[in-house]
Parts: sequence; C-alpha cells; structure tokens
Amino acid sequence: MPLRLAELAVRFGCELQGDPDALVERVAPLQEASPGSLAFLANPRYRRFLAGTRATAVVLDAGSAAECPVAALVARNPYATYARIAQLLHPAPPVVAGRHPSAVVEAGAQVDASAYVGALACVAAGATIGPRAFVGPGSVVLGGAQVGADTRLVARVTICEGVRLGARCLLHPGCVIGADGFGQAPDAGTYVKVPQLGSVVLGDDVEVGSNTTIDRGAIGDTLVGDGVKIDNQVQIGHNVRIGEHTVIAGCAGISGSAVIGRRCMIAGMVGVAGHLEICDDVAITGRTMVSSSIRQPGVYSSALHADEAKRFRRNAARFQQLDELARRVRRLEQAAGAQGEDDE
Amino acid sequence: MPLRLAELAVRFGCELQGDPDALVERVAPLQEASPGSLAFLANPRYRRFLAGTRATAVVLDAGSAAECPVAALVARNPYATYARIAQLLHPAPPVVAGRHPSAVVEAGAQVDASAYVGALACVAAGATIGPRAFVGPGSVVLGGAQVGADTRLVARVTICEGVRLGARCLLHPGCVIGADGFGQAPDAGTYVKVPQLGSVVLGDDVEVGSNTTIDRGAIGDTLVGDGVKIDNQVQIGHNVRIGEHTVIAGCAGISGSAVIGRRCMIAGMVGVAGHLEICDDVAITGRTMVSSSIRQPGVYSSALHADEAKRFRRNAARFQQLDELARRVRRLEQAAGAQGEDDE
Amino acid sequence: MPLRLAELAVRFGCELQGDPDALVERVAPLQEASPGSLAFLANPRYRRFLAGTRATAVVLDAGSAAECPVAALVARNPYATYARIAQLLHPAPPVVAGRHPSAVVEAGAQVDASAYVGALACVAAGATIGPRAFVGPGSVVLGGAQVGADTRLVARVTICEGVRLGARCLLHPGCVIGADGFGQAPDAGTYVKVPQLGSVVLGDDVEVGSNTTIDRGAIGDTLVGDGVKIDNQVQIGHNVRIGEHTVIAGCAGISGSAVIGRRCMIAGMVGVAGHLEICDDVAITGRTMVSSSIRQPGVYSSALHADEAKRFRRNAARFQQLDELARRVRRLEQAAGAQGEDDE
Repeated sequence: MPLRLAELAVRFGCELQGDPDALVERVAPLQEASPGSLAFLANPRYRRFLAGTRATAVVLDAGSAAECPVAALVARNPYATYARIAQLLHPAPPVVAGRHPSAVVEAGAQVDASAYVGALACVAAGATIGPRAFVGPGSVVLGGAQVGADTRLVARVTICEGVRLGARCLLHPGCVIGADGFGQAPDAGTYVKVPQLGSVVLGDDVEVGSNTTIDRGAIGDTLVGDGVKIDNQVQIGHNVRIGEHTVIAGCAGISGSAVIGRRCMIAGMVGVAGHLEICDDVAITGRTMVSSSIRQPGVYSSALHADEAKRFRRNAARFQQLDELARRVRRLEQAAGAQGEDDE
Repeated sequence: MPLRLAELAVRFGCELQGDPDALVERVAPLQEASPGSLAFLANPRYRRFLAGTRATAVVLDAGSAAECPVAALVARNPYATYARIAQLLHPAPPVVAGRHPSAVVEAGAQVDASAYVGALACVAAGATIGPRAFVGPGSVVLGGAQVGADTRLVARVTICEGVRLGARCLLHPGCVIGADGFGQAPDAGTYVKVPQLGSVVLGDDVEVGSNTTIDRGAIGDTLVGDGVKIDNQVQIGHNVRIGEHTVIAGCAGISGSAVIGRRCMIAGMVGVAGHLEICDDVAITGRTMVSSSIRQPGVYSSALHADEAKRFRRNAARFQQLDELARRVRRLEQAAGAQGEDDE
Repeated sequence: MPLRLAELAVRFGCELQGDPDALVERVAPLQEASPGSLAFLANPRYRRFLAGTRATAVVLDAGSAAECPVAALVARNPYATYARIAQLLHPAPPVVAGRHPSAVVEAGAQVDASAYVGALACVAAGATIGPRAFVGPGSVVLGGAQVGADTRLVARVTICEGVRLGARCLLHPGCVIGADGFGQAPDAGTYVKVPQLGSVVLGDDVEVGSNTTIDRGAIGDTLVGDGVKIDNQVQIGHNVRIGEHTVIAGCAGISGSAVIGRRCMIAGMVGVAGHLEICDDVAITGRTMVSSSIRQPGVYSSALHADEAKRFRRNAARFQQLDELARRVRRLEQAAGAQGEDDE
C-alpha cells in the first residue's frame, strides 16, 4: 500500500523536504533504489551513494539534508525512523489462528484459540501457548513451557520444560531455550552431573537469534530482561541475568552466573567469564574477553587486530619475552640513573 | 519425598552437625532457601550468604561448618555431594517404554521394547535403539546408528549414519553427531570434496551440549572417551580423539585430527588447531588458542583480558611495534655496555 | 566395486609405480590400511607411516614415491587425486525419487518428480525443489525458497522464505539459511527492529556446515558465490558477500555487510567486523580479528598462542603497561642521545 510522504512525516515526526504528495511503497538501499522506493542514510560510509540515488525519498538527518537530490524525511534518528517506516510498508504477515494438520498438540496443552501451531511442530502436555502466538514448523515446546502473547517461534525452535517466554518475543530457527546448564562436579577424576533444576525466563520483546542457546538455571532461573536483543549463535550459561535493553551480538558467550546490567552493548565474539558482574551502560568491543567484574560504565576492549602475518609473528614472539623486556628497561633506567648520579 | 539428614549423612559419607531427624525435600540456593530446602556452599564467593540462610541444612566443607547457622552436612567435596543429593531429591523422570503416535520408526530399525521414541522423531532403517533409551521429540537417528542403553536424546538431536553412542549418554537439543568433516582438497583454485567415510564413536556417560557438533572421521573414526562432558556450541572436527573424563566448556573448537588426553579441562572459547596432541591432565584457560602440541601437564593461557578501551588501544598500537621496541632496548643495552666498557 | 590401478592411473593422470592389475576397493589411513585398500600421503606429518603401510597402493607425490613400499599412484596433487578416487570408490547413494509418507508437501509447493522429500520434512507452499534434490529428514523449506538441482539438505536443515540455493549444494544438519539479520536501531534506550527484507542467494557447489547460520539481507541480499565451502558453526551476517571459491573454517564469524573476495582462506574462529572489504586471495590464520579492510593479498594474523599460564600472566600484565614502557624507552634514548651529544 503506497503511502504519502506527508503522512509519514506527520506520523514519525520528521521534517519533510520535497513533495508531500509523493508516494513510496517499499524500501531499498540508496544505491539500488528506484522511483517508489524509500531509502535511508544513517552510516556515513554510505553517504557517497546519496547524490546518485533514484529513490523517491530518503530518511536522513539534518546534516545531510542539503545534499539530498530527492525528497527528504529529516529525522533526529534516521535509522530508527527508517525501521518504523519499513515496518509499516512491509508488515509481518498476521498470525492466522489454527493448527497445521501435521502439528502435534498433546492432550493437556493449552493453545489459545487465536494462536497458530505449524507443520510438524509439537506442543507437549502442560505447555501454554498465548494469544496470537506463532509456533513455527518443526518447533518443539515441552511440558510446562509458556509462550506469551504475540510471541513468534519462527521455525525449528526448542523450548524446554517449564521455560517462560514473555509477550512479543521473536525466536529464530534453531535456538534452544532451557537446555541443561553445564554443571559437572569433579570428583576423584570423574564428574558427577549437577541436576539443573531452575528454568529460563525471558521478558517481553526479547529477540533470540538463530542457533543461540540459553541454558536453564542450576537452582534458580536464568533471567533475560525486557527488550534484550540477542543475535545468532550466542551461548548464555545457567543462572545468567541480563538487564533490560541490553544487546548481544553474534557468537558471544556468557558463562554461568554472570550478571549483566541494563543497556549494555556486547559485540560479536565477546566472552564473559562466570560469576562476575557488569554494571549498566557498559559497551564491550568485538572479541573482548571479560574475566573480572566491570563496575564503571564505559567502553572495554581486549582484542588485537589483524596484521600482516610475518610482522605479527615477530611481535607475538616478543610478547612472550615482554616481562623480561620490561625488566631490562628497568635495569637500563637504573644504570642511567646511577650513571646520572655519578655524573653529578 | 522428604529425606532425613541422618540418612543423607550415612548414604553420602558426611559428618552431620545438627538434628538427624530434620527433613529436606528439595534443593535451593543459600540465599533463597526456605525450610525444607537443602543448600550448598562450594564457591567462596557465596560464603556471604551463609549466615542468613533459611535452609534446613547446608552441604559444606569442614572449614565453613563452624559458621553454619543451621544443620550442616560436612563433606570432603561439598559440590559433588550436593550433586548426588540433588539427583536423589529430584530424580529424572523414568523412561516410559513406547512410541509417540507421531514418531516414525522405519521398517528395519531395531528399537528395544523398553525404549521410548518421542513425538515427530524419526528412527531410520538399520538404526538400533538400546534398552531404556529415550529418543526425544523431533530427533533424527539415521541408518546404521546405534544409541546405547539408557542414553537420552533430549529433543531435536541429530545422529547421522553409523554413529555409535555408548550407554548413559545425555545429548541436548540441537546437537549434531556425525555430520561430514570439513575435508576440502584445493585444486587449481577450486576445491574437491574429500569423502568423509569414518564415523563417530562416543563412549559411555558422555554428555553433549546444545547445538554442539561432532564431525565424522574422514577415514577412521572420531573418538570421544568415556565420561567426557561437552558443553553447548562446541565444534569437534573430524578424526579428533578425546580421552576419558575430559571436560570441554562452551564455544570451544577442536580442529581436525587433534588428540586430547584424559582428564583435561578445556575452558570456554578455547581453540585447538588440528593435527596436534595435548597430553593428559592439561588445563587450558578461557579463550586460549592452542596451536602446537602440549606435552607437559599444567595450565596454559593466551587470552588478554578486558581493559578500558582507550588504554587498550594505546597498548595494542605499541604491540604492533613490539619487535622494534625490543631492538631499541637491545641497542640501548649495547650502547650502555659499550659505554660501560669505554668507561672502564 | 574393485578398480584396477591402471585404470585409476589413466583416469586421474597419475604415474603408476607397481602392478597395473592390482585391485583396490576402499580407502584407508596409511597406518591402518589392509590389502585391497588405497591410502594417501599428503601431509608430511604422516610420512612416518609410509614404510609400514599394508595398503595395496598409496597416492603420493613424486618426492615420496621412492620410499613407498607398495604400489604408488604418483600425483601432482595427491590430496585432490585421493579425494577423486575416494568419491569413485565410495559414491554417495543416489537420490531415489519420491516422498516419505510422513513428509509434508503443502499444496502450491513445486517438487520435481526426480527429487526426494524425507521423513518429517516440510516443504511449504510456494517453495520449489529442483531435479534430483534431496530434502533430508526433519528439514524445513519455507515459502518461496528454491532448492537447486542435485542439492542435498542432509537432515534438519532450515531454509527460510525466499532463499535461493544453487545446484549441487550440500547443507549439513542444523544449518539455518535466511533467518533475520540482526538489525536493531537504538532509540531512546530501547531498540526498534529493522525489518530484514532481503534474502540469501547461494551459488552452485556451495557446502554449508552443521549448525552454521547465514542471515538474510536487510534490504538487498546476502550473497555466497559459487564453490564457497563453509564449515560448522560459522555465522554470516546480513548483506555479507563472499566471492567464489572462498573457504571458511569452523566457528568463524562474518559481521554484516562485510565483503570478502574470491579464493580467500578464512581459518577457524576468525572474526570479521562489519562494513569492510577483504580483497581476493587473502589468507587469515586461526582466531584472527579483522577490523579494517584488507586491500593486499597475503596472510594476516592476530592471535597469541598458548603459553604456560604463569608466564603468560606476567607478560599480559606488562602488556597493560606497554605504552608506558615504550615511553620509558624513548626517554632512555633521548637521555642517551643527549648524553651522546654531550660526549661529542
């Protein structure tokens, strides 16, 4: 359904520059957009494509508006405004109530009449599926699990016993919520399994990426706060607690019993050790290893970056002698100091 | 079923401090326990919760017993003792023989009469499911695979052709045992697939985490020894051999043909390169990269830890000049030495 | 079916050393081979097993031929030649046209008459399955997706809406192609989901490992070129483009909008940041972090390697003072220089 730029400007609080009656009906990248498309400019890397765009309109900030060759929706936060308009132009298909004939809904499962259970999905006895929830094809919801209103399990999602998902969550294929945490008590050269008796509780508006795993608590629950967004292949250990509106990028790993604050930004491949705390508003850059608590908001790093291999190897070899090198510098300083004294 | 402390003390070899007739019926964390609960104290981080606990009894070591405000089960290894009591208080549900009506068991599959095949699980022709084994919902067991007695595929587990699992194994959702190893022979700018003709053999009492992958061997088999415990999202390449009672934490990766000894402890996100050997009793700390054989038991590391980003960046920039810095120190030493000699 | 060495030599362009009428019927490792087996020697680590082999013949290069105690097929590229012979001796089972009775093929799905849809697999309305394609047990192919000719989804593979797979692709269990990219627009302390409207296009002859995830594009498509080989548990973000015949080993992660050239070799656990470019013919060693564009072919590294933990810790502590150490060296040089000048 095409929308008028004037309507978009009013609805999303943008300043409109250009024809209020122009229509857009889809979104497209700046450099590939054709008439009828809406594009956006948020990352300065892509500014070079602005002058040549054929979009009907571009969402951008005031600083770029003067350069825009077509209509502009000038926004304080162009990326978020673009996201909202894109949701409007490309709405997710509504959930159609019902069950695929191949779905298995066991006796004793409670599936809201407005929910959908897809092909070859299984909802076990004692599970609860809320209003307008979507249990996609091949998903498994085990006993006692609760899926909140408007929550969507895209496909092949596993929700283990007793896990509770809030409203409007979005879980991508292959993710596993509530498998046993890794509790192994060493004893005389072997290990005794520690029963994992807690569960997992996800708040509202949580997104969980593909093949991400969130383990159930050992005794208490693993807790993921409202609005937390988790990317693909993230591993979250038992009894972790994650504060509201924290984002975690792909391949990060959070070890058991770590407590992460609100509004943190954890980049890709970050590792967080167990039994520590990260306060609110901490940003951790890609591939950093966090092995002790962080008590001050700020940005933290520990990853070395790619270098030409030969040069890297030489430096890495020196790293193995770094303590000794520092001692040698100390001796030189002492000698120079002593000599300086001698000189005096 | 509530149990008397006296019975627990006798059964698990603890010294009892307190009322032998007191009853516990569940476990709980120290700080959340209520009467009727058993708690434990193993990690000193949580000692601060001991004084205020409302548990009926606490499993702890002799060093903490005097501080315990309630009954105590004093154990040499409190964590393992707790694990055993928790298993007793919260036993896993027994396997009920049978098949879910939606399960697919192909002609030519051998499923023991005491085993269970769950909803929408598939056991292919030629596969063997042992006594009291549990093939959870959505699992796939391909032809020729063998699932040992009392082994449990929780849900959505994939066991590929010819893979053999020992007894009492526990495999969590999403894990894949026996997919092709990554064998690609480079040839004139493209790659020829190397057929992966071996299989995977898991010993007894092996635990495999959620979304972990263990590849089949290229010619011989990939071997995982008895009692090995593997966490979530671990990748184990073709022809790897892992010795008995080794533990591997989440997100670790073991490259093809690596041989890992017995009783090793491999922490989270560790990477092990291919075609090398790690001897028995080696501990590798989180995120370490092992790229050559380790022949001495001990602890090994290579991960830098998080630092304030600006400071880290300055140090990382110096790292790129480290070889040059070492040469400069050498020149200073030579100059000082030469000067020293001149002085003499 | 046993094959004569003479036939193999002609077919694969090898020089034959030994009895042309000798027969091989299977492949085996050098050290485990018995008569009737073909072995190969490509990695010098395994040369020590050559003298004792009981194989009927060995594929190796000219430099090792003189040491071979049995018949030899002397090849320019022994590993690739071995791979081709192994494919001949151990061919993949042919695809048998049809559908498992438990498969779900929705009305409006187009499944070629020569394709196979396995047990408990689901092909949704609007999906297209090409000639001789294999949709393995438990796989899910969503609406509008296209699976090319001779492409094989081994088992429990998820192909999301509109994803297009080329011919002769091989996708291993648990991989997910076309889940939403991680697009989250920060806004006033929360996040707005950015609709992921593009898709994923895989070229021909692409292999995708177990539990690997390849996200759909945000607006345009994520593109994987012909002949790309991807190992297990790799994460590929939205709008990434990967050039032809690039290989990516296990647990690597490629962030959104990265562009990777042709014939690159990306080792295990490598991380590539988003919005950058890597040119053709780049090799990146294990666990390297690439955070800026690479414009020159070559080899790049950034991973420190395992060291004895105590020593590593001392050096890592010095690393945190490295900038200060460099400044101290500079002061010593200045003092020495000044002194030198004083001396003159």
